[in-house]
Amino acid sequence: MRAAVLQGGTVETRVIGDPVPERGQLLVRSLACGICASDIHFMDHLEAGMDDESGMSTYDRDAEIVMGHEYCAEVVDYGPGTERRIPVGTRVSSLPVLATATGRRIIGQNPESPGGFGEYFLLDESLTRVAVSELPSEIVCIADAISVGWSAASRAQVTAKEVPLVIGCGAIALSAIAQLRRLGVGPIMAVDFVASRRETALAMGADVVIDPAEISPYQAWRDVAYGPPEPMKEMLTAAGLPGCVVFECVGIPGVLDSIIRGCERGTRIFSVGGPPEGEHLHTLTAKRKGLNIQFGGGPLMHHWDEAFEAVCSGSLDVTPMLGRTVGLDGVADALAASRDANGPVRIVVVP
Amino acid sequence: MRAAVLQGGTVETRVIGDPVPERGQLLVRSLACGICASDIHFMDHLEAGMDDESGMSTYDRDAEIVMGHEYCAEVVDYGPGTERRIPVGTRVSSLPVLATATGRRIIGQNPESPGGFGEYFLLDESLTRVAVSELPSEIVCIADAISVGWSAASRAQVTAKEVPLVIGCGAIALSAIAQLRRLGVGPIMAVDFVASRRETALAMGADVVIDPAEISPYQAWRDVAYGPPEPMKEMLTAAGLPGCVVFECVGIPGVLDSIIRGCERGTRIFSVGGPPEGEHLHTLTAKRKGLNIQFGGGPLMHHWDEAFEAVCSGSLDVTPMLGRTVGLDGVADALAASRDANGPVRIVVVP
Repeated sequence: MRAAVLQGGTVETRVIGDPVPERGQLLVRSLACGICASDIHFMDHLEAGMDDESGMSTYDRDAEIVMGHEYCAEVVDYGPGTERRIPVGTRVSSLPVLATATGRRIIGQNPESPGGFGEYFLLDESLTRVAVSELPSEIVCIADAISVGWSAASRAQVTAKEVPLVIGCGAIALSAIAQLRRLGVGPIMAVDFVASRRETALAMGADVVIDPAEISPYQAWRDVAYGPPEPMKEMLTAAGLPGCVVFECVGIPGVLDSIIRGCERGTRIFSVGGPPEGEHLHTLTAKRKGLNIQFGGGPLMHHWDEAFEAVCSGSLDVTPMLGRTVGLDGVADALAASRDANGPVRIVVVP
Repeated sequence: MRAAVLQGGTVETRVIGDPVPERGQLLVRSLACGICASDIHFMDHLEAGMDDESGMSTYDRDAEIVMGHEYCAEVVDYGPGTERRIPVGTRVSSLPVLATATGRRIIGQNPESPGGFGEYFLLDESLTRVAVSELPSEIVCIADAISVGWSAASRAQVTAKEVPLVIGCGAIALSAIAQLRRLGVGPIMAVDFVASRRETALAMGADVVIDPAEISPYQAWRDVAYGPPEPMKEMLTAAGLPGCVVFECVGIPGVLDSIIRGCERGTRIFSVGGPPEGEHLHTLTAKRKGLNIQFGGGPLMHHWDEAFEAVCSGSLDVTPMLGRTVGLDGVADALAASRDANGPVRIVVVP
């Protein structure tokens, strides 16, 4: 098959062997696959794969790795021991995890589990979901990106007495914003240096957007949460001041620490970005403020299903996130273009 | 008055001016005051005071600071605007916070709020609690040290399906262990390099103690939590594997990160130690494991009151934690001795 292959640190489109489905696996044809910031992280950070003792994500510089974990695909064939409940030709997607004979692998981040930047790849039959949708595959494939922020926003259980602050306006942030909007909490505040990203955040449901070059996000938060006209402020104070819930959706070292230093006492932080190299944190400040940090980017299965249904049905409109599409020959350039924060949230590969 | 004075980085006992109670404050005589690891942290870490934007803790090298925040004292006089509900001569203690005209100060960590390593100091009348106790002041003064771990253990709300692992066996750890024991959860596992500290942990209620020089605490935890005889293991598995709750009670850089790297997926971490200089954390590992870190060492007021009552009534026996007592002239040497982890958990200053 033709595929965009990561090897020795660079991506090149060429012909490699077709993947062969093992026990419980489906062979699928890639219809569309989004380029995610974590593809860039994965390429750039050998140590992140080494840090992962589970072996799910392994970056072996000498091996051929086909990235791409936000896909819409079509069933082509079945491996041994499959139920074959989904007919050939059906459009599907899944959580990007593949069970192999030796363990679970992240699809698109392991030589054993190629992803959607090639013509064919493998899915775990038990995780495969049928795309009940009339929307194009370029839209359906965005569901996995949506599921991460969706799950974080769901797990946060933001109350009516809390005001959420979303740091970054990439795909995870935007999906967190969309889900916070659906859950009816707010005002939802969102932060990004890039004007186009802030526009997209408004389109996805943010109430207030902040350019951190103009005002500290935490001062802006206080202005909104504590600073309404006096009569309302007295009501708020009587009922207890609003609490702060911060969603860290950036993944660049220093951002989580800047949240720790800037946020209010008692803030609940959901760190979804998580830079591969880790970072130095002012833990004494965190201690003095009594902060809580929930780490975790992976969606829960039922949140993935909810997000997939919302995207497939069109009840969640993800078109503000979509940029151009490219073929397999354009993957290397598109990956490079994805480094530019001024670009669209998602470039989609259509093999 | 005579006092052990921290100035220019060293402690010297000499005569300084008596503190004068301001509005709402009591003048008290120090009867006994424990030496805490945070006294050492405070001496050694100028930057920690600077990091504290609240101004509660300020280490000015040129100023005279009298440390000591775990005290039992006797009421001597009243400042203006006090209710005078506690008679002169009554034994008291308090959460070590003093309200001044310009803000709240940590007693013993600010030039404006001297602590118990001097003959006299000041308390906030509204926070002052009467010691209803027949026990000596050297025991009563330990209550504040108890309150920190007590509060963390209470807030953790460890369930019957979780197995707690306490890292470090200093005062905070021991009080967390004591409160976990009272709450009826367990088995309680405790970790320290020092044999005498492990002995004290057993005396305070730990079920299993671990020398990390012999076995990884996380392997030991798995052995206890997952590794009972087969029939019981099957029961546990059927009911869901036990969850891990780790109490970080060390405060040395690298410990929190080692917990992140060693612990099970989904572990809830209570970071009570918090090294002043902060630390580098493998946040990607934390993210992949979905860890939750609750930072915070300060006790809630009602937990402080509970711990004080338990110590005063003798229902919590803190004598395993007590070492020798010293006079004001011995404070500098006793502070130096407190750096030795092989020493007793608490040396008490009796001015």
